[in-house]
Amino acid sequence: MIHVVALAGGVGGAKLVDGLAQLLPPENLTVIVNTGDDFDHLGLKICPDLDTVCYTLAGLANPASGWGRQEESWNALGVLKALGGPDWFNLGDRDLGLHLERTRRLQAGQPLSQVTADFCRAMGVKHPVLPMSDQPVPTRVFTSQGELAFQEYFVHRQCQPEVNGFRFDNVQAAQPAPGALKALAGADVVVFCPSNPWVSIDPILAVPGMRQAVGERPVVAVSPIIGGQTVKGPAAKMYAELGITPSALAVALHYRSLLAGFVFDNLDESLAGSIEEAGMRTCVTDTLMVVPDDRKRLAGEVIQFCQSLVENTGPDKGK
Amino acid sequence: MIHVVALAGGVGGAKLVDGLAQLLPPENLTVIVNTGDDFDHLGLKICPDLDTVCYTLAGLANPASGWGRQEESWNALGVLKALGGPDWFNLGDRDLGLHLERTRRLQAGQPLSQVTADFCRAMGVKHPVLPMSDQPVPTRVFTSQGELAFQEYFVHRQCQPEVNGFRFDNVQAAQPAPGALKALAGADVVVFCPSNPWVSIDPILAVPGMRQAVGERPVVAVSPIIGGQTVKGPAAKMYAELGITPSALAVALHYRSLLAGFVFDNLDESLAGSIEEAGMRTCVTDTLMVVPDDRKRLAGEVIQFCQSLVENTGPDKGK
Repeated sequence: MIHVVALAGGVGGAKLVDGLAQLLPPENLTVIVNTGDDFDHLGLKICPDLDTVCYTLAGLANPASGWGRQEESWNALGVLKALGGPDWFNLGDRDLGLHLERTRRLQAGQPLSQVTADFCRAMGVKHPVLPMSDQPVPTRVFTSQGELAFQEYFVHRQCQPEVNGFRFDNVQAAQPAPGALKALAGADVVVFCPSNPWVSIDPILAVPGMRQAVGERPVVAVSPIIGGQTVKGPAAKMYAELGITPSALAVALHYRSLLAGFVFDNLDESLAGSIEEAGMRTCVTDTLMVVPDDRKRLAGEVIQFCQSLVENTGPDKGK
Repeated sequence: MIHVVALAGGVGGAKLVDGLAQLLPPENLTVIVNTGDDFDHLGLKICPDLDTVCYTLAGLANPASGWGRQEESWNALGVLKALGGPDWFNLGDRDLGLHLERTRRLQAGQPLSQVTADFCRAMGVKHPVLPMSDQPVPTRVFTSQGELAFQEYFVHRQCQPEVNGFRFDNVQAAQPAPGALKALAGADVVVFCPSNPWVSIDPILAVPGMRQAVGERPVVAVSPIIGGQTVKGPAAKMYAELGITPSALAVALHYRSLLAGFVFDNLDESLAGSIEEAGMRTCVTDTLMVVPDDRKRLAGEVIQFCQSLVENTGPDKGK
């Protein structure tokens, strides 16, 4: 069975990771998660993508929203709001318990990767989940309203400011989390989950050493854009504001030099020729994950596609 | 109607303050609360006595425990515990919301007295509630197991270590909270609520300027010790460990030079002669506050006793 390293952001990425984890044993799947949208809020270190992936793998995620926890209560935030505090970032009570303990451990000197591994063990997550780095690399968004911290743009201003570009603060001083490069070196294929290319996958690739390690393996990306739109989040809006027509093709071209294969939706079948011209193999299928079974089905097709690529190109990636 | 300043610690003090607040309008009652047992925990600034007094006055206190909030949920702490975090200090979800917002405001530079006033307004508390100081004055407890932070002694070790003494850290650098000295100067009488003399009232009096301002007014203390025992908390145990037989008399002698009058329980009526010999007037009544109505009844008797003292001694305290 092939060894996969999956790169993921939040909700969409977590869904595919969940599917992959249902089909691959823990020794065959490592997940590297974007931490570019981590931020400090109310004195807490909050890691939205990492938590979404872990909650999803633990079966604790809120099935309606995709983020946060199921059976959540909102009493702390309710009081905070009644006292005039900033309630723009949704923090459920159970979620808060995790943020408090993570913040405590980080302040005591534990690296984020260690805290994440401990939390995964406590939550029953068996597949290794790594933050992209133990060093904070906060994404900054250049917008029509100035440079904004990512969550200020994403949640507080609801992605309304027009985007001009991105900056991954402190990235040159960051290192891949322990185990990330080793997992990549041992991977038969790297899967870019259907996450935002600009602010979920690019930050991971920007960590020094990461892009090179990824580039040495066959890479398959799953398009987060279907019919010119994103299922969730601002990827399509970002493409448009950056002067690029949002489409599966735009995603394929975004990653072009890295990709051996590209998975995209039946709805975009007409783009297959252009994508193949960019030098990659294609897999056209139903990529929309609505019900839980969709995750396993799409993951199965992605794994099959990866296997066909690995068999065709050999383990040393002769693309 | 007389003007009262009440000095209070946690649960017992809050109950009498609640009774006083039912009988005196906001302009006639100011409460100064011990902040010696405030501490930093999980990155949060927690002010147990201040919160107990405010929750009680707001009608939000848990009627069973006396501390914390009614209709509370415990989901954050449950998750924190499941992740291996320190769960020895009980933090309900609604309570957490307040701690998060207070911590945020303090870190933004607001003084504790301002935050407390804002929170009181938001919670509908009309009587002025002041922390003893805006500067942290953490109580340290000298024990058979070494010097301990107060909550480490009080909650984590459940008052089990034998006590040798107390230290109010940083107290020389502290100042009474804005408004405290003015309230004392305008008071007809100062009431020491039935709170722990060692670790609730003494820390307030230790703030530079406070003891002198209190000493310039007639003072009435209500004994927290009934029949040699405390209703709640370690006051009696502390007296015994410090070599003093715990009793209402011991409390009266503890404050002796300050007191014009002393209120204690019928159960201790036999001590009246000794207490009067110490140079103060006495009021013997039922001081145990079990049901809410007890608070108003006892407060009424305390006010009446105070009025009789003020009328007998005149406004300039001719004791």
